[in-house]
Amino acid sequence: MTKTSRQGKFISGHKHGRVPRAVRQQQLLDVAEELFTAQGYEYTSIEEVARQAGVTRPVVYEHYGSKEGLYLACVERARARYEAAMAETFGSGMDIPTQLERTGELYFGMIEDNPARWLLLFGGAAVPAVGKLGQQLTNLRFQTVRQLTQQLRVQVPEVPEEQLEAAMHAISGISEQLGHWWLRHPDVPKAQVISLYCTFIRGGIARSW
Amino acid sequence: MTKTSRQGKFISGHKHGRVPRAVRQQQLLDVAEELFTAQGYEYTSIEEVARQAGVTRPVVYEHYGSKEGLYLACVERARARYEAAMAETFGSGMDIPTQLERTGELYFGMIEDNPARWLLLFGGAAVPAVGKLGQQLTNLRFQTVRQLTQQLRVQVPEVPEEQLEAAMHAISGISEQLGHWWLRHPDVPKAQVISLYCTFIRGGIARSW
Repeated sequence: MTKTSRQGKFISGHKHGRVPRAVRQQQLLDVAEELFTAQGYEYTSIEEVARQAGVTRPVVYEHYGSKEGLYLACVERARARYEAAMAETFGSGMDIPTQLERTGELYFGMIEDNPARWLLLFGGAAVPAVGKLGQQLTNLRFQTVRQLTQQLRVQVPEVPEEQLEAAMHAISGISEQLGHWWLRHPDVPKAQVISLYCTFIRGGIARSW
Repeated sequence: MTKTSRQGKFISGHKHGRVPRAVRQQQLLDVAEELFTAQGYEYTSIEEVARQAGVTRPVVYEHYGSKEGLYLACVERARARYEAAMAETFGSGMDIPTQLERTGELYFGMIEDNPARWLLLFGGAAVPAVGKLGQQLTNLRFQTVRQLTQQLRVQVPEVPEEQLEAAMHAISGISEQLGHWWLRHPDVPKAQVISLYCTFIRGGIARSW
């Protein structure tokens, strides 16, 4: 979606007031994600999201309840897309080392495409991890890990549940911290980060599973 | 230090106004760490820290500049202690698997002792990782990893610098996420978490180094 097509009152193809609920929701998430990414969660108001989306504030509240709700919905959508891409990889029938490499491409590709967006949605950078919102964010992260664990389950039926889940959390930590490290070493090529990621994890799962 | 000994105007052994600078600073950090841990960073005021320490607000500002400064000093002190304990392990002459197990004891022991304190100081739970404060927190984390990398360096001189540093970031991510996972699975014994941690990392470093 281009910048112009989702700003202002009209979403192309829909007259004002006739925008289907699902389309409006996606538009609000697009606008919010862009504003949160560009200027920070803290410095973005519902007012501003409404204005850029060409709706009134009550419309945003009606769909998402609060700024927290809007932010959580952004995270949830991004995670759902990431989980779907991962599911495709895990279901591809490729061998495990190739799948692992592909997951590295997905994750570090996301960072390469838009580091600020990754920080906002995956890098734990928007809000403190305590309180109700922090708890909800942690829940979403755990949901992703649970999802990926289930997707992978069929390929490694011999690994005990707890061990597999713990390993997936370990891998999520590796990805995140290598991501932060990479942001501070932008001279390191993506291929090299992915190679470090794959090598470390291949070793880890060779011993753990 | 017991609760009574650091509350009120008098620190045992020192008359009011005669408390040496370094002693006062440690006392303020003790009080702040306890309040931040018990009620959350967000809900703790300099006013309250001053009151519990038996000093006026300007005294806290004089030593730490701001609430952010006070919090960063808490993190810095905790990290310095953790780094010192790690240095002792790395310098112990034990074999690497034993050292690794010992680092797991240190890390997960810290979580076991006081989960809320760990979340506050190591679990990225107090403040968002963006903005100036977030940047400073990330700097402290990177300092710890750099420190540990240098400590380990002599034991694995053959591992390229970048690879070693990246692996240490990966390990820091594993520790953190296994920590969060453990908090949600309190039924898992510490020994088992440490075993999962060691197994995964042993494999990772066997391949990476």
